[in-house]
Amino acid sequence: MVFWTSRRGARPEAPRLRPRVAPTDLARVDFGELVPEPVPFLGQAAYIQLEFFEGLAKAVATAPSLTSKEGLSAAAGVALRKHHALIAELRRLGVEPDDVMAPFAPATDRFRQATAGADWYELLLGIHLTAGMLDDYFSRLADGLPADLGARVRAILDEEGAAVVLGSELGAAIRSDPRLADRLALWGRSLVGDTLLIARSALRASEADGRAGERVEPVFTELIADHTRRMDALGLTA
Amino acid sequence: MVFWTSRRGARPEAPRLRPRVAPTDLARVDFGELVPEPVPFLGQAAYIQLEFFEGLAKAVATAPSLTSKEGLSAAAGVALRKHHALIAELRRLGVEPDDVMAPFAPATDRFRQATAGADWYELLLGIHLTAGMLDDYFSRLADGLPADLGARVRAILDEEGAAVVLGSELGAAIRSDPRLADRLALWGRSLVGDTLLIARSALRASEADGRAGERVEPVFTELIADHTRRMDALGLTA
Repeated sequence: MVFWTSRRGARPEAPRLRPRVAPTDLARVDFGELVPEPVPFLGQAAYIQLEFFEGLAKAVATAPSLTSKEGLSAAAGVALRKHHALIAELRRLGVEPDDVMAPFAPATDRFRQATAGADWYELLLGIHLTAGMLDDYFSRLADGLPADLGARVRAILDEEGAAVVLGSELGAAIRSDPRLADRLALWGRSLVGDTLLIARSALRASEADGRAGERVEPVFTELIADHTRRMDALGLTA
Repeated sequence: MVFWTSRRGARPEAPRLRPRVAPTDLARVDFGELVPEPVPFLGQAAYIQLEFFEGLAKAVATAPSLTSKEGLSAAAGVALRKHHALIAELRRLGVEPDDVMAPFAPATDRFRQATAGADWYELLLGIHLTAGMLDDYFSRLADGLPADLGARVRAILDEEGAAVVLGSELGAAIRSDPRLADRLALWGRSLVGDTLLIARSALRASEADGRAGERVEPVFTELIADHTRRMDALGLTA
């Protein structure tokens, strides 16, 4: 698990193993006030990109046309680059990426299975919505990393990846078969819970503070609002 | 299918749709004497790289450890880069890559299924041996392309890809379970036929000339010798 706390005052300039000061003023928390520990943050983010890569590679292998394969394989390449770039950041911190990623594997693997869907369209929507939420989430949380590292991680995560090709494939499919919209709308709504669980697993209150839920609530509200905008863009009722 | 012929004299400097002169002196044919038509050559080579990518992505998804995933996913990234670089060459020639690749899809898909194996080790050996033979084959045949294009294609195909990680994974597995060697030796031998069929499908004699088999025989002999060296390096009896 990644350990987090709210941040007061200046951004720390070096990785910290665990924040020592429990926060008290939690009324208006934003992303920038959460201080991720760099090592587990990078480990979880890297492993999640590996899962997106595997999902996109499956989408390539099962794509109905070569045109779809080309766009999806390019997106798979981007997820792979993100994965390897985050692994490289772990090595810069002097840790072995496998050891850091391993604790996140079981829950993330279950997450991928739970969001893989029953067919190609559900697979695509699963990646579109969960990667949409989690890339954004980890990128914004990276603001709380030491400044140089945070900037590099944001640059890694903000690379335009699967969103355009997935939005375009799904939009075209929904337009050509309107009945698909109802099924995908249901499926899209069902993905939110699993995604929030992964997001929440990246947050843990300091043990002296039981108000973790309250602290991260605004973060999750924002995630869900973004999800709704993504569903709307596809013409799906969120 | 890609149309080929033996080449006499100078290398053509521009893509040709179909060679007009049937070869006559076929006694000592080498790779440089075969003139591939650029468009179908690139289409088949590009589609084969896509298959290697899909195979490697499957190997990533089913890998037993994160260490294996890292090396294999890097190799998958290389196959993907080769695929997209060859597609880019098709676009430079003013053709739509999907249209050019489509005719190769059925046979290449069957080839991937036939060489995917019964478990992770057979999957790895299947990619190692077939990619080893076919990358080398297409790279050497690229010598017959117009000079600039041929040099670029060789540079694309010669990028070090999966060979090191696959050789290392398989070598370690065979050392830790010597019984694996017998099964994999059998499996490796069984892959040669399917690979030669793919290689042969890239060659078609001009219709006036029925001696295609004789002409390409030395090429295949070389492919098989390389295969044997690759098996030997793993301690497998070819």
